[in-house]
Amino acid sequence: MILPMLLALAAAPQGVEPPPKPTAAKIAAAAPASSWATIAPEDLLVIDFADGQRGVIWLASALAPVHVANIRTIARSGWWRDGAIYRVQDNYVTQWGDPTNKKPPAAGIAVHPPAEYEWPASAHPIVANPYKDAYAAVTGFTADGWAVAGDGRSQWLPHCYGMVGVARDLAPDVGTGGDLYTVIGHAPRHLDRNIAVVGRVIDGMATFSARKRGTGGGLGLYENARDNVPIRRVAIASDLPAGERLSYQYLKPSAPEFARTLEARANRGLPFFTVPAGNADLCNLDVPVRKTPAG
Amino acid sequence: MILPMLLALAAAPQGVEPPPKPTAAKIAAAAPASSWATIAPEDLLVIDFADGQRGVIWLASALAPVHVANIRTIARSGWWRDGAIYRVQDNYVTQWGDPTNKKPPAAGIAVHPPAEYEWPASAHPIVANPYKDAYAAVTGFTADGWAVAGDGRSQWLPHCYGMVGVARDLAPDVGTGGDLYTVIGHAPRHLDRNIAVVGRVIDGMATFSARKRGTGGGLGLYENARDNVPIRRVAIASDLPAGERLSYQYLKPSAPEFARTLEARANRGLPFFTVPAGNADLCNLDVPVRKTPAG
Repeated sequence: MILPMLLALAAAPQGVEPPPKPTAAKIAAAAPASSWATIAPEDLLVIDFADGQRGVIWLASALAPVHVANIRTIARSGWWRDGAIYRVQDNYVTQWGDPTNKKPPAAGIAVHPPAEYEWPASAHPIVANPYKDAYAAVTGFTADGWAVAGDGRSQWLPHCYGMVGVARDLAPDVGTGGDLYTVIGHAPRHLDRNIAVVGRVIDGMATFSARKRGTGGGLGLYENARDNVPIRRVAIASDLPAGERLSYQYLKPSAPEFARTLEARANRGLPFFTVPAGNADLCNLDVPVRKTPAG
Repeated sequence: MILPMLLALAAAPQGVEPPPKPTAAKIAAAAPASSWATIAPEDLLVIDFADGQRGVIWLASALAPVHVANIRTIARSGWWRDGAIYRVQDNYVTQWGDPTNKKPPAAGIAVHPPAEYEWPASAHPIVANPYKDAYAAVTGFTADGWAVAGDGRSQWLPHCYGMVGVARDLAPDVGTGGDLYTVIGHAPRHLDRNIAVVGRVIDGMATFSARKRGTGGGLGLYENARDNVPIRRVAIASDLPAGERLSYQYLKPSAPEFARTLEARANRGLPFFTVPAGNADLCNLDVPVRKTPAG
């Protein structure tokens, strides 16, 4: 017997399951092409490691412009050609760059860039996030697809899983971008506003997270250089030969489906979940990203 | 010139660095023996994998007693002898148990245990945590060393990095404890109150987190059984031969140093940090654990 739809919605009779609540992934997948925006290929950093693995990083060019310009220059100069992953600290970060810590900076970069740790909130309007975060009074999403934290006056990029920052020495050092890290554990939000965050791993995250942990210095440094994971090539996607081109899109924070993905993450439902959380912290609300569909 | 201490504290003259702010790890390491409590060896689950790696899990025997009793029975029965890690989902969980999903339950266990997802707050008094959490109005630490979340009426164990839960099928299934998982990414707190949390990895976390990610079913399942990581032995520490005995301690939440570790995590200082977060979510406030010092 097929039940009239209204009756089924009003009260599921015993033995008839309500339809599963759509997940954020399903909501995003069903969004029309007009709800997606293509990431500029100049904002994609493609890292190929000697073991054949690849990581793709979306650069926050509008939010950390000097550091991102440095990173593009470093990539194009070949400076990372003898670079490697040399630090993997469990529940913290994987870091790569110059394992010798002795190379002179790449030519043409800003050796002492401005901190770019935060910026005035008015500079980048956001779509407000209705869910509570433990670290920031205000959170939301910029039109160009970045989840940001703020206090009403300032805004900053949060240290969520997969976010990429610029390694630096002790304060007041800022770091050039020659050494980068990504978060591979619970969000170390105490790093927010203390380091320049410059991007987000959007493909190949396991090439950073599924690595042997280091044991050196209480910092996860590889004590034996043979553990280093050499970099084979770093490129900006717009520089890749035509046959190698990559393209990704993000779900526009202004799209109606975007707000529905937030709600779906804050309030997960049957058939698996019986108690919805009623909230999701900023690091559980990443902006959906996909490979640009063919055609 | 050695500065008088009071002057140095009142205002560090230009060019004289203030002493570094003690970290949570340093505060815990300096705590006297009386501030530490030994974990009962009956509450330590020791998993040895065929590749020589070991994980040690502290079982929350007072908070999930029926599941923990099941887990002890399963360990002692040898049921896990042909078990394995069969699922590693990036930024989510590593899961182990019966990769065939077909074995009958171990003899003597509760096949349909109570949910044990939460309990009345009055059952386990807590030392209150002064810092804000995005998922729970009330948080704190039980006398026996567990960080818990709550709403004033109920309490529950949070899904933080390294916490161990009981895998289950769709609701209303509860799971027996034969298949377990640990969190290897940003805390999936939406699982709180939907699954029985039964412990915490306190040693060898990398044996769970630094594993190849699986690709099956969108769930990180290993699609080729050759990727499974076989279990060689699972034991309760109190059953180990004398020469293999293990002992761990936790910093008592009632100890004066404990509160100082919380403050040190919420407000990190120079020489690295220039902007303290002023807060730390519950999953960035794990109870310090150490191997019991010799002698």
